[in-house]
Amino acid sequence: MLPFSQYDAHGHLRHLITLEGMTSEQVRELLDRAQRYLRRPGEIPAHGRSLAGITVGNIFTEPSTRTRSSFELAAKRLGADVLNLEIQLSSRVKGETVLDTVYTLQAMAVDVFVIRDAEPGVCQYVAEHVAPHVSVLSAGEAHLSHPTQGLLDALTILQYKGGFRDLVVAVVGDVRHSRVARSAYQVFTALEVGELRIVAPDALMPDEGEMPEAKRFKTLESGIEHADVVMMLRIQKERMAQAAIPDAHDYFARWGLTKQKLKLARPEAIVMHPGPMNREIEIASEVADGPHSVIRQQVTNGVAVRMAVLETVIENRNRRWSPPR
Amino acid sequence: MLPFSQYDAHGHLRHLITLEGMTSEQVRELLDRAQRYLRRPGEIPAHGRSLAGITVGNIFTEPSTRTRSSFELAAKRLGADVLNLEIQLSSRVKGETVLDTVYTLQAMAVDVFVIRDAEPGVCQYVAEHVAPHVSVLSAGEAHLSHPTQGLLDALTILQYKGGFRDLVVAVVGDVRHSRVARSAYQVFTALEVGELRIVAPDALMPDEGEMPEAKRFKTLESGIEHADVVMMLRIQKERMAQAAIPDAHDYFARWGLTKQKLKLARPEAIVMHPGPMNREIEIASEVADGPHSVIRQQVTNGVAVRMAVLETVIENRNRRWSPPR
Amino acid sequence: MLPFSQYDAHGHLRHLITLEGMTSEQVRELLDRAQRYLRRPGEIPAHGRSLAGITVGNIFTEPSTRTRSSFELAAKRLGADVLNLEIQLSSRVKGETVLDTVYTLQAMAVDVFVIRDAEPGVCQYVAEHVAPHVSVLSAGEAHLSHPTQGLLDALTILQYKGGFRDLVVAVVGDVRHSRVARSAYQVFTALEVGELRIVAPDALMPDEGEMPEAKRFKTLESGIEHADVVMMLRIQKERMAQAAIPDAHDYFARWGLTKQKLKLARPEAIVMHPGPMNREIEIASEVADGPHSVIRQQVTNGVAVRMAVLETVIENRNRRWSPPR
Repeated sequence: MLPFSQYDAHGHLRHLITLEGMTSEQVRELLDRAQRYLRRPGEIPAHGRSLAGITVGNIFTEPSTRTRSSFELAAKRLGADVLNLEIQLSSRVKGETVLDTVYTLQAMAVDVFVIRDAEPGVCQYVAEHVAPHVSVLSAGEAHLSHPTQGLLDALTILQYKGGFRDLVVAVVGDVRHSRVARSAYQVFTALEVGELRIVAPDALMPDEGEMPEAKRFKTLESGIEHADVVMMLRIQKERMAQAAIPDAHDYFARWGLTKQKLKLARPEAIVMHPGPMNREIEIASEVADGPHSVIRQQVTNGVAVRMAVLETVIENRNRRWSPPR
Repeated sequence: MLPFSQYDAHGHLRHLITLEGMTSEQVRELLDRAQRYLRRPGEIPAHGRSLAGITVGNIFTEPSTRTRSSFELAAKRLGADVLNLEIQLSSRVKGETVLDTVYTLQAMAVDVFVIRDAEPGVCQYVAEHVAPHVSVLSAGEAHLSHPTQGLLDALTILQYKGGFRDLVVAVVGDVRHSRVARSAYQVFTALEVGELRIVAPDALMPDEGEMPEAKRFKTLESGIEHADVVMMLRIQKERMAQAAIPDAHDYFARWGLTKQKLKLARPEAIVMHPGPMNREIEIASEVADGPHSVIRQQVTNGVAVRMAVLETVIENRNRRWSPPR
Repeated sequence: MLPFSQYDAHGHLRHLITLEGMTSEQVRELLDRAQRYLRRPGEIPAHGRSLAGITVGNIFTEPSTRTRSSFELAAKRLGADVLNLEIQLSSRVKGETVLDTVYTLQAMAVDVFVIRDAEPGVCQYVAEHVAPHVSVLSAGEAHLSHPTQGLLDALTILQYKGGFRDLVVAVVGDVRHSRVARSAYQVFTALEVGELRIVAPDALMPDEGEMPEAKRFKTLESGIEHADVVMMLRIQKERMAQAAIPDAHDYFARWGLTKQKLKLARPEAIVMHPGPMNREIEIASEVADGPHSVIRQQVTNGVAVRMAVLETVIENRNRRWSPPR
């Protein structure tokens, strides 16, 4: 068996499990397409029929996440039928197997699986086993990968900064446990960001070998100095102890982004956050809601990116594959 | 900042949070439009495309209420995309803020929020903060307001009685804790109902100053005498004790509407109930299912009213507002 | 009152509660129509607009069953609006009555109810009380009936075997508690299957009088000998004790279908299972995933059968009934 690839035999995107190893061109093609789906606030959102007849199965372990809603709207706005399913694929390993669940849905003509699962490897495992006309899109996998988030982050930077090569981008907070940071690292290195920084207390830094192209900074202040882009990460309470930080108040004092600290960055710096935010813990409200924040635009871009990815994998499928006669 | 208004600068309905202060004309315009959406039972329900491209976000704290279904069908039948979300906005005040949740959905191009929340003020708070092209519709707010219920009640009376000015309307039961009763009071006073009565045991009467235009009656029998419309309210078990009524059996004996008691009302009186009914507690089955009952028609009218409200706020938005170029 | 019939006055299918008493012609008409909805894997699934304007209410007690998804996709692919509701009708007998819930949805113009409920009789009870233009489809009723499953099983046999009269069909496992087995028995006798066998340990056999036309076999080996079709049933752990089988391991040894045992059947035998499968309990993975298995095709056929049933009851309604003028 060939090693797993998310590209088909023609080199076209079939699954989206990770941004690792993507070329600049592959990323930019997706971003270009996504940009065509952007509308001004209050305009009727972009609609199409390119997914008419296609069924998208959203398999999420929780009922109403923002990512689920974003994928659901992206699919519906392109004319797909959407099936929302709350099942935990990983736990299904006991009992009905993951594959039984997936094959059952595939037999109902679910052609795209959007999967969020806490267990590493589930997305790839499903992708390795589905029929040739079926695609799997990760909607967040353990601490490892959140590829549509990485793409929407890149799209947001492109919108506000026009490019990547001259930028200093700082990713700040619990980098160690963050799938958002990993996908960001992958997409930013593909796009050859000028200087990529990871900024975290020691205990929340990734292991030594990981993210070799990023510069490491151990204080917020040093890490965001002269940055063009400051991407703050969500911190979970249980991680603070790990970093010997007694409480949220203390975390905010050391690692929370305030208006005052933001002055260390470039004057026209943008501030990003994947959401949901812990206000006054990793980010002050004055920053989240301030003029540097592009956090809402990230959400808007998320729908556009997911439309682009959905349309791309279906277009590629129609290129490589026609049903047997 | 201007005081909150659910009308836009041109005086057109933008949000629907309350019926308080609505004029007769404003109410009748909505009822007229709703009537155009009524079909005979078994006919294909009214359909349209006036909400095509619009996304309606249903934010309900419980999974499957009748009001949620009614709004969902109203939106879908006008061509909208519907996102069902089970989140409690009020509790989100801790953690992610209400506004973060709402702004996130707004950034995904959710243009109409339909909100049911147990905490007073959430609907207005959201309405005060959304973008100019976004509308908020209350689907029930604490004990305070249930405006689409009030409208459907008015529509039902209009259908069966042809008008309001000559009518005696009795609202019976736990008026004190009822958002249905408050919205009914508001819409019936706007429509200048001939005589409006609230009928309840002392402990379930609203405070002295409230509902000043209603006559108060302390027995079911006196309250429904010669009434043209008898609107029964749902009683919750925990409220009986408050009224010194030992149990459901006793409540029924004193406050339950039976066929026998209904003879006190006008011979052609109609009986209404917002549902879900406690049969043999506040209403006898012989009445609920009897010839005077218009309870099912209320449900049908609910969908029509919600279609009318949705279409109205989107029409008004298109009148006042075009996306920036 | 006439005894309940799922056929209308013209003898056309109105509800689908059971397959009992169906004629071969009635079954074949549904299978013929379903076949028109089959597509090759990866083809755009059959789509239509024959249910445009119709609202289908899925009333299921659990959130995400395969049957719910199958009905949902069937309805959406024919252009219906779908309302998913998680309510237990039977338990509603206390509190709001079953009929109040159903009448409320009917008043919102839900025209087809798809109901799965654990309590026997709920589907028929609802069907007896809905308005003349409304249909009720069972999606599984207690241990009694699962008619669309029976139809998809028949369709699957028709596809692979071309007919029924010369076949030996063995239904194996917990026949006693299985709605799948009962619907299979009904449809296979209607279609005059050559030889119909039920194969189970004594304690899991249906009562003496039941399934009179089936031959009874008390070992797996004897029961599947020379069979053309082997239909395995799901076993629940709590039933094993009832059959004096100590554990799943022991059940597999005696009642699990292995490749080795399958050699007793005809060389071109097909193996069916309604899903979800307990692998290595009632069926070995080598069989479930082997060349004789048609288990995935059953799932595909399920969507086609449900499209056929939905379209049939709506067509029949339009034939017999036009809204009052």
